Amino acid sequence: MSLGEFELIEQYFRRPAPRAVLGGGDDCALLAPAAGQQLAVSTDALVEGRHFLSTVPADRLGHKALAVNLSDLAACGAEPLAFTLSLSLPRVDEAWLAGFARGLLALADEHECDLVGGDTTAGPLVINITVFGQVPAGAALLRSGARPGDDIWISGRLGDARLALEAFRGAMSLDGRDFDAVRPALELPQPRVLLGQALRGVASSAIDVSDGLLGDLGHVLKASGVGAELDADAVPRGPVLARQPATLQRLCTLTGGDDYELLFTAPPALRAAVHQAELTAGTAVTRIGRIAAGPGLRLHDAQGRPVVHEAASFDHFR
Amino acid sequence: MSLGEFELIEQYFRRPAPRAVLGGGDDCALLAPAAGQQLAVSTDALVEGRHFLSTVPADRLGHKALAVNLSDLAACGAEPLAFTLSLSLPRVDEAWLAGFARGLLALADEHECDLVGGDTTAGPLVINITVFGQVPAGAALLRSGARPGDDIWISGRLGDARLALEAFRGAMSLDGRDFDAVRPALELPQPRVLLGQALRGVASSAIDVSDGLLGDLGHVLKASGVGAELDADAVPRGPVLARQPATLQRLCTLTGGDDYELLFTAPPALRAAVHQAELTAGTAVTRIGRIAAGPGLRLHDAQGRPVVHEAASFDHFR
Repeated sequence: MSLGEFELIEQYFRRPAPRAVLGGGDDCALLAPAAGQQLAVSTDALVEGRHFLSTVPADRLGHKALAVNLSDLAACGAEPLAFTLSLSLPRVDEAWLAGFARGLLALADEHECDLVGGDTTAGPLVINITVFGQVPAGAALLRSGARPGDDIWISGRLGDARLALEAFRGAMSLDGRDFDAVRPALELPQPRVLLGQALRGVASSAIDVSDGLLGDLGHVLKASGVGAELDADAVPRGPVLARQPATLQRLCTLTGGDDYELLFTAPPALRAAVHQAELTAGTAVTRIGRIAAGPGLRLHDAQGRPVVHEAASFDHFR
Repeated sequence: MSLGEFELIEQYFRRPAPRAVLGGGDDCALLAPAAGQQLAVSTDALVEGRHFLSTVPADRLGHKALAVNLSDLAACGAEPLAFTLSLSLPRVDEAWLAGFARGLLALADEHECDLVGGDTTAGPLVINITVFGQVPAGAALLRSGARPGDDIWISGRLGDARLALEAFRGAMSLDGRDFDAVRPALELPQPRVLLGQALRGVASSAIDVSDGLLGDLGHVLKASGVGAELDADAVPRGPVLARQPATLQRLCTLTGGDDYELLFTAPPALRAAVHQAELTAGTAVTRIGRIAAGPGLRLHDAQGRPVVHEAASFDHFR
């Protein structure tokens, strides 16, 4: 790539940043959280062949690269403010860049999150985003707040992203209509930003499900020093997944990964407040278990029979 | 890599983050700039083969990855607070990781900059850092403030990093002692963080020299809507470079790149204040030219004769 091509790339991402004091184009961007607010920061990289297939349409990749980062803000109950983009590209492909920017910036606009800086270089295809949000001081949802007796809740449905991935990989087959129904879960995840904010003051802990339900619940249990009982059959799933063999349903819902739903806990006394947050955010939530005082995670089915499941969650190093 | 190896990697970077409200280990880190301060943010990626040679010692690479980001904070006059690290690694090499972490965290400690989060993945060797600093509201040094008549200043010396790179590439040869003298400029750049802060209220504009003096001065001229006259012979250089042929000296000092010195402007009435900042920071500064009202950059030598030079600065896409 030449310097001219470098500037060409930047043009796809140049736009006003009304929520920043100073947007891109200087050595730093300047952000000013509102009075009484703390800044929430998260960073996630997507590497070709590890986090996405080379066949994914560019606009969907742009969407997903920001979505997985916004999902971390959602899990903290933070309101999106801005993000930086660091892009390593093997070549300049204007159609690809236009598509990538379109998908990325459409989601950014939807969540009023300004692109305030970045870095572009020639190299293997790696997309790194760092996202900034604000949250009232002391109000962030943490992994460490789950208490014995709390309900365990999950937003949306789990497992479709993994089902789509297995179909892409050829590990199983889905007919065209079913594939079309689950593919958006993998390629166009919707970060639960409004739900996270609505759960401030309600949820005792929260995390987003990126590595699989059991693995991410394990992070909450470890950080909170508690255990849990989970009803494996209560985990919500879509109609396509519900028609698959039981073992595949368990694999996808419990350890699927790439779901970007919110897993959270709340005291039973706050169930009405949880349902109010559900209405405010327009995202369905389902109660799937209970936090226990003793350590460990016990799975049972709808009839209360123990479920044995290897807790091997999605691993980016497979 | 397995999940176990992933956790192993994280151990090298796990440590307290006293300057953050919440450090790593949750979905987001939480930062709270002090009252009246804005948050300065910058991001830079280093890709193997583009920004560093595969032969560079790991501790020096760790140092440089953070140094180039701190240099952006310096150019804004911001005080470092925290950073996130996103690391894509082709394999788990404990000796390499230990060295990388040692170099990275030593520089972080020196500048009291906390590692507050990150992301590790298998993939090509790419290091992405996003750095956060704070600066009093309205006091950030910008590229856009240069005014006609302002002096143009540069910190330290330019060109040694490029000279070392050319020797590494075999484009020229240096004897062992000379090579040892210039190699730290390439591998262990010292971000001018204290100087940047000392120049708040003194410098009218600033930028760090990462792409080469002429290219980076060009950014200031464009952002400020001004031109400049520069004395090419006044640009400070070290004794090894000063013994090289004149054309090589010009190449290295004017368009070398990777210098991470501060290029700044200030009104002549503030020369004493500039020298006070020099003393405060312990970093020498040299006056090398003057901002002009008319557009364009005119180079002359010590005798005032015009110098013709291709303004092709360091390009990460070569």
